[in-house]
Amino acid sequence: MSTAYTEPSRSLLPSWRPSGVLDELLAFLAASESLPPSERVAVFDNDGTLWAEKPAYFQLEFFLHELRKAAVTDPALAGRAEYGALLRQDHAALADLGLLRIALALAELCAGLTPEEFAARSARFLLEEQHPTLGRPFAQAIYQPMLELLDALRAYGFATFVVTGGGTEFVRAVSQQLYGVPPEGVVGTLIEYEYLRHAGAPALRRTGRISGDGNEGPAKVLSIQQHLGRRPVFAAGNSAGDLEMIEWALATPGPALGLLIVHDDAEREFAYESKAATAQASTQPIVDVGRRQGWTVVSMREHWSSVFPPRPGEPSGAGWPAPRT
Amino acid sequence: MSTAYTEPSRSLLPSWRPSGVLDELLAFLAASESLPPSERVAVFDNDGTLWAEKPAYFQLEFFLHELRKAAVTDPALAGRAEYGALLRQDHAALADLGLLRIALALAELCAGLTPEEFAARSARFLLEEQHPTLGRPFAQAIYQPMLELLDALRAYGFATFVVTGGGTEFVRAVSQQLYGVPPEGVVGTLIEYEYLRHAGAPALRRTGRISGDGNEGPAKVLSIQQHLGRRPVFAAGNSAGDLEMIEWALATPGPALGLLIVHDDAEREFAYESKAATAQASTQPIVDVGRRQGWTVVSMREHWSSVFPPRPGEPSGAGWPAPRT
Repeated sequence: MSTAYTEPSRSLLPSWRPSGVLDELLAFLAASESLPPSERVAVFDNDGTLWAEKPAYFQLEFFLHELRKAAVTDPALAGRAEYGALLRQDHAALADLGLLRIALALAELCAGLTPEEFAARSARFLLEEQHPTLGRPFAQAIYQPMLELLDALRAYGFATFVVTGGGTEFVRAVSQQLYGVPPEGVVGTLIEYEYLRHAGAPALRRTGRISGDGNEGPAKVLSIQQHLGRRPVFAAGNSAGDLEMIEWALATPGPALGLLIVHDDAEREFAYESKAATAQASTQPIVDVGRRQGWTVVSMREHWSSVFPPRPGEPSGAGWPAPRT
Repeated sequence: MSTAYTEPSRSLLPSWRPSGVLDELLAFLAASESLPPSERVAVFDNDGTLWAEKPAYFQLEFFLHELRKAAVTDPALAGRAEYGALLRQDHAALADLGLLRIALALAELCAGLTPEEFAARSARFLLEEQHPTLGRPFAQAIYQPMLELLDALRAYGFATFVVTGGGTEFVRAVSQQLYGVPPEGVVGTLIEYEYLRHAGAPALRRTGRISGDGNEGPAKVLSIQQHLGRRPVFAAGNSAGDLEMIEWALATPGPALGLLIVHDDAEREFAYESKAATAQASTQPIVDVGRRQGWTVVSMREHWSSVFPPRPGEPSGAGWPAPRT
């Protein structure tokens, strides 16, 4: 990171407090100008990196919302073990069933939908339903400093992508509007579609089957290559599932930056610790792994002057930010 | 296609002769302005639609090139049935072995390469090796009128993608340079990568295994949704493998256009017929299927004033067109 041709200004990142972290980001932007445009590639995890992930993953909240709706018209749904346990909030039964079985049962709720129907339901939920504790719609529980960073990277010629362990199509439904990332720039865990013919034309229907494995850990490195075909020099994450992706970016020969978001802000967001449970780093806090490997470690409490976009009526904005196009 | 807000000019498509086909393309561009930007999505087949595919697929030529190179240093390769038949051009033996077995054997030649190594070999072959009959490098055996069409669509706000039955990574190696389509905009038949660790960091190595099925026919509709997450309103192809993709674009409610390239120009390119062998259209010429379904059918001989980019020294250009960035 030695060849800074220009001096990126702190005004690019107004929600980042002056700090060593901000200096590292600005130095990386300056250094990136030595890279050919095709190598300016940045990848972002989503849950806990671009939007919040507590008290529960937004996608889980979405499926619960769909389940409650469906159970009104079809009470028999509660008879299925997974749905019953979810509707009763029976934590012991849920633990017995296991997360994968529950996730697949929930995915089945949307089986049979067209891509457009699923996208419309996802977008409506995220844009209109309220986050349970943050006092704003789910789609506004996104991190203002990270939106600024996405814009700053694009201003420096970067292609920006979202590489999520969450559902690809769930995030795609709002990725352009929230992040300025079009659907093809989102790589995640994919539910398969079924091809059929309807009224003499091709048609697609969502299934309940996951394509391949969930997009976490080493799978993120594979999906970046297979889906995007480009190697990142910038990667941002917040958990053990992002470890290999960040290492992949940092193992490039030129300027590179790995960013780790630490959730240590119980007052404005949440405070919790993510542990790495990979072979490499058994169960160490991911922040220790990151510091040892020279990542740029972001304390939400220390380094961000604001966490979320301003609410309507708050000083810095008259309403929710306008949708991006 | 009734709401033409502007009148696109024929100067956008200088290699298209004045004709009903040109008028349909210009009318579609004008009508597309009634679509929201996110719905302006165009997909192009590659072999026979953006670059030539005769006398053999360029990717087959590439693998044969790699095989001949490898056989020089390792003559034992000729002992493997598939490689021996290929090196001897033993058509009877090749027919007995079948295309899939030969394709997989050839893919194994590049197993173990990193993504960067495979991309470099592919790009070098396409940019430097001569097409056997067209008197130009493979990378210049691309259709000038289609390059103009890609540019015209982008000028009207379209996202442009390549949806190929060929190898994803083979096409990605040159897609930005030849077509202005970045690697993430190419969806094809994918050879899997293996994740491993090398020198303390993640590493990827190419395998000889195909991920899923080949990207032809209905698989193209599935891969467009799963990979790109957007539905096209414009699709261009030249063979039965493009049938469903074109139908998928045309079944949208607004302005849409399906383009079929007919190879009927033995003098400037090649003359051959593509037949549809799907359940829908048993073994009819694809051009008959297309005409019946209202596609825009392009006769290379009639509708294109030039087929390929000008050679160095030819009147319309001092050299090969500059690489796109």
